[in-house]
Amino acid sequence: MQIGLIGLGKMGGNMAERLRRDGHQVVGFDRSPSAPRDVDSLQGLVAALQAPRVVWVMVPSGEPTRATIADLGDVLEPGDVIIDGGNSRYTDDQAHAAALIEKGVKFLDCGVSGGVWGLTEGYALMVGGDAETVALAQPIFDSLKPTEGGFVHAGAVGAGHFTKMVHNGIEYGIMQAYGEGYELLKAVDLVERPDEVMASWQQGTVIRSWLLDLLVRALDSDPGLAKIRAYAQDSGEGRWTIEAAIQNAVPLPVITAALFARFASRQDESVAMKVVAALRNQFGGHAVGHEGSTAPVPVS
Amino acid sequence: MQIGLIGLGKMGGNMAERLRRDGHQVVGFDRSPSAPRDVDSLQGLVAALQAPRVVWVMVPSGEPTRATIADLGDVLEPGDVIIDGGNSRYTDDQAHAAALIEKGVKFLDCGVSGGVWGLTEGYALMVGGDAETVALAQPIFDSLKPTEGGFVHAGAVGAGHFTKMVHNGIEYGIMQAYGEGYELLKAVDLVERPDEVMASWQQGTVIRSWLLDLLVRALDSDPGLAKIRAYAQDSGEGRWTIEAAIQNAVPLPVITAALFARFASRQDESVAMKVVAALRNQFGGHAVGHEGSTAPVPVS
Amino acid sequence: MQIGLIGLGKMGGNMAERLRRDGHQVVGFDRSPSAPRDVDSLQGLVAALQAPRVVWVMVPSGEPTRATIADLGDVLEPGDVIIDGGNSRYTDDQAHAAALIEKGVKFLDCGVSGGVWGLTEGYALMVGGDAETVALAQPIFDSLKPTEGGFVHAGAVGAGHFTKMVHNGIEYGIMQAYGEGYELLKAVDLVERPDEVMASWQQGTVIRSWLLDLLVRALDSDPGLAKIRAYAQDSGEGRWTIEAAIQNAVPLPVITAALFARFASRQDESVAMKVVAALRNQFGGHAVGHEGSTAPVPVS
Amino acid sequence: MQIGLIGLGKMGGNMAERLRRDGHQVVGFDRSPSAPRDVDSLQGLVAALQAPRVVWVMVPSGEPTRATIADLGDVLEPGDVIIDGGNSRYTDDQAHAAALIEKGVKFLDCGVSGGVWGLTEGYALMVGGDAETVALAQPIFDSLKPTEGGFVHAGAVGAGHFTKMVHNGIEYGIMQAYGEGYELLKAVDLVERPDEVMASWQQGTVIRSWLLDLLVRALDSDPGLAKIRAYAQDSGEGRWTIEAAIQNAVPLPVITAALFARFASRQDESVAMKVVAALRNQFGGHAVGHEGSTAPVPVS
Repeated sequence: MQIGLIGLGKMGGNMAERLRRDGHQVVGFDRSPSAPRDVDSLQGLVAALQAPRVVWVMVPSGEPTRATIADLGDVLEPGDVIIDGGNSRYTDDQAHAAALIEKGVKFLDCGVSGGVWGLTEGYALMVGGDAETVALAQPIFDSLKPTEGGFVHAGAVGAGHFTKMVHNGIEYGIMQAYGEGYELLKAVDLVERPDEVMASWQQGTVIRSWLLDLLVRALDSDPGLAKIRAYAQDSGEGRWTIEAAIQNAVPLPVITAALFARFASRQDESVAMKVVAALRNQFGGHAVGHEGSTAPVPVS
Repeated sequence: MQIGLIGLGKMGGNMAERLRRDGHQVVGFDRSPSAPRDVDSLQGLVAALQAPRVVWVMVPSGEPTRATIADLGDVLEPGDVIIDGGNSRYTDDQAHAAALIEKGVKFLDCGVSGGVWGLTEGYALMVGGDAETVALAQPIFDSLKPTEGGFVHAGAVGAGHFTKMVHNGIEYGIMQAYGEGYELLKAVDLVERPDEVMASWQQGTVIRSWLLDLLVRALDSDPGLAKIRAYAQDSGEGRWTIEAAIQNAVPLPVITAALFARFASRQDESVAMKVVAALRNQFGGHAVGHEGSTAPVPVS
Repeated sequence: MQIGLIGLGKMGGNMAERLRRDGHQVVGFDRSPSAPRDVDSLQGLVAALQAPRVVWVMVPSGEPTRATIADLGDVLEPGDVIIDGGNSRYTDDQAHAAALIEKGVKFLDCGVSGGVWGLTEGYALMVGGDAETVALAQPIFDSLKPTEGGFVHAGAVGAGHFTKMVHNGIEYGIMQAYGEGYELLKAVDLVERPDEVMASWQQGTVIRSWLLDLLVRALDSDPGLAKIRAYAQDSGEGRWTIEAAIQNAVPLPVITAALFARFASRQDESVAMKVVAALRNQFGGHAVGHEGSTAPVPVS
Repeated sequence: MQIGLIGLGKMGGNMAERLRRDGHQVVGFDRSPSAPRDVDSLQGLVAALQAPRVVWVMVPSGEPTRATIADLGDVLEPGDVIIDGGNSRYTDDQAHAAALIEKGVKFLDCGVSGGVWGLTEGYALMVGGDAETVALAQPIFDSLKPTEGGFVHAGAVGAGHFTKMVHNGIEYGIMQAYGEGYELLKAVDLVERPDEVMASWQQGTVIRSWLLDLLVRALDSDPGLAKIRAYAQDSGEGRWTIEAAIQNAVPLPVITAALFARFASRQDESVAMKVVAALRNQFGGHAVGHEGSTAPVPVS
């Protein structure tokens, strides 16, 4: 079928390629003239597609996505469909759908996982919206997703991005779990070959996973992780997961600990720990002479 | 090759079966006369094996393993090898090796992962001990492990169980991460099909794993996990992981949070939370009338 | 000086009393006719006060406060001052100030701590707003606050409630710390008199505090906390603290753990822990016979 | 009464001074000849005291305390009493008592809090042992403790140090709670005077405490804590608290988070976070061009 695709970066470009390989006609647009775009304006995009049009938006979340969807709403016709495949917050989806419904334009949100492997292995898709609109776009989803599984219609508008958000929260927790385990292995002399341990865990263990496979790849190219900095960014989705949990009174100790570990990794120094250090100084100096020894008696 | 195997429960029995399928001669012993044992005493076991003997101990960790290894030390001969394949604490291994070395008996510790699937898929093995002894037992390891990978000689005596212990700590963190994510999905009306979400994540996502596959199996047999109690035991290995981390000053926030969540799941009520509730009562009753409303003004 | 006070519940009523004792003329209003109000409408309140008027709003946060401030904005005159002494979110303050500035009405936010003890001991006050307006209301603050200290002009509009919010976050952490310690004392037979331990800590220790004094009061009236349920509500301020931390990438592991412990205390059962229990069942039953013992070999 | 006191460092010296001020005859010994000791050997100490002797040991925990108590056991007579006032682990107490009982020497363990303020304000004392022996030493305890309160006979041998250990665990949690709150205040521009906020909290608030008083002292001498490093040691007692909790299946999320924050403060870089960073690189580079923007589309 025909599809418009806005945003031809690494993700969008690969998705366009996967759709074309499966026989779809993709009309690509990107704000940048240097991108391999098929049309040079949203108007051109609309003109190139037959109604009812399906337009996939694959641009950064937040303002770029909001602006793109608003502009699309001005040029599309009743019955057309916008799919937001970016990393929008689920609350944005609900605002988008409400604004578009007045123009008769339909809206789906689609969380996408898979990264650079998606082109060949397929993208995991989590979709929110009404069943009729989902059905209309199903051929697109079927081509993007892996051969088996990897697709869910999770619920109404917003459910797709909510689900993807939770996926990323889980991802934070799992990554941190492997990180903590590897750190403990490396902390003791007893374990002489921590990298080999991680590699051996890829088969037969309870904790084998795709993330473990990736970690072993990383260790192969950087043994002992000697070269990489202990500095981890976080995308919005980890934060939104905690915020959603707080709003629903759901305790998420593991996912939150993982997020906070990333925050801490980016601090030059912890102000909280300055407080702790200052307090320790206050209540005794913590370096107290005694009985011919240089070791302190903690005096708290 | 020949091997003695002590402990013919579900794990030991399956391992004996996998070894026999691969051509080894297994002489099995179990303290229980009702087990399908080949000999009826440790002396019988020793007599049935040619020196240098390799005896695999697969009994519960702690006192049963300690007693078995002590008894074996009395009947084995210099040059024989004991492999502790149970879930012993790594500190036990070092004590065992030290006691046995005086008798000329060699010792390996081997952490084993794989559960009931091990029979067909192979067991992941993490081994501690000296290289020469490991080489002597390698044919056994090669038959037990999966076709590819799943084996590591992690370091000296104790390194095998230490590594398996860390494996289990990571497992705690990953399981809790999935649990938290699923709980958040179920907490919001927006996500209408949380079980289908989990199933869809098995392909194409960053968080696909064997544990996720198991979770989907569990959801298939108990949709919404309506039937199972929110009550989780912990084995010693999670606790030992935290203790080892504390001794090495390694922060493990995620793995520890996962362990504590299990502790909490087994409490009828939290004494700590009684304190919090009592304190809230003390500083204001937290139910304060005002301006014609029934809602309280928190007064802290 | 003169002051209008809206909201004559336990907090507002006590504050009015403390102000009158110190010589101020308080004109009280409450939406409820049964409250001991001095006027029966906002118009009556305005008429009873000389310009420039200072009106203290002490009603529940959220919609009641928003409605009261909006209504006041309609009846006050340029140069008058509204002080929000409730538990509003700091983001509300900034919206209120922006709306009122167009009418020439000034706004201060004031976080108040002290609970039922405030009447006699004074209320701790944390104020946000411009210095000129703070100075205008200073006589009121001086009468409400304790004899010494207990007052801070923390910053611009919103800083008062932000500061009070953080105060409450810290309070969560401290309460949980005492709770955990008391739980551990009670968990071991070795400590025969945990209530006496808590009482003894009130003097001479590093951890003596007002909250500890309150806890000892609670233990005096309910030894062993046998009667109180392990169920703790949370007000908005703990949640907002975490949300503010997330927005500023500040790790708050202790305060967050304390909030999550409250969430967990209100759950009948943890869905996350159902997942963990279900997974444990999947990978081996965790009840494996062996060598004549009834104890299971964990088989992960 | 008479008392022998071993260990004349800052703590021991101050305690000797407080006892002498209250009329006791203190015979001080220290291994170091440069200390102001009254006798120059344990034999001299024994000779200078009338039976039944009470000897207070105030030396570093671990080997120094163990050696001192063993040596004392050799020179004391049946009916004499040893009080370990240091920071020993409660498990050591039980070993000491068992060894001494064979010689007829009695043993008490006494956790001491108060730091450098103890000399004038009194020391909080937490005592373990049998009631008869506690009664024998009560005059000493009465002189060391604050005028009111500050003393508890917590239970049998070990209960004193166990209780002090838990005290320190709580202390960790409270210190971290203040630290986190201060960090959040400093992280936002809205709060212009975070040091003044802390100072104002000393009166009238729910969170007023001695530790807060100390923190304000620290801020007075180092505004904004600009000079102190974010580096916090931990004594054994925090670690032992977590280990005791794990052995008793008590969840301590707040105290553990506080301990881990100290561990993290001493790391040059977190190996766990290297893993997280490496994984993020693996699944997409996290720097993905798109639609004319330099911002990345996270591609997980």
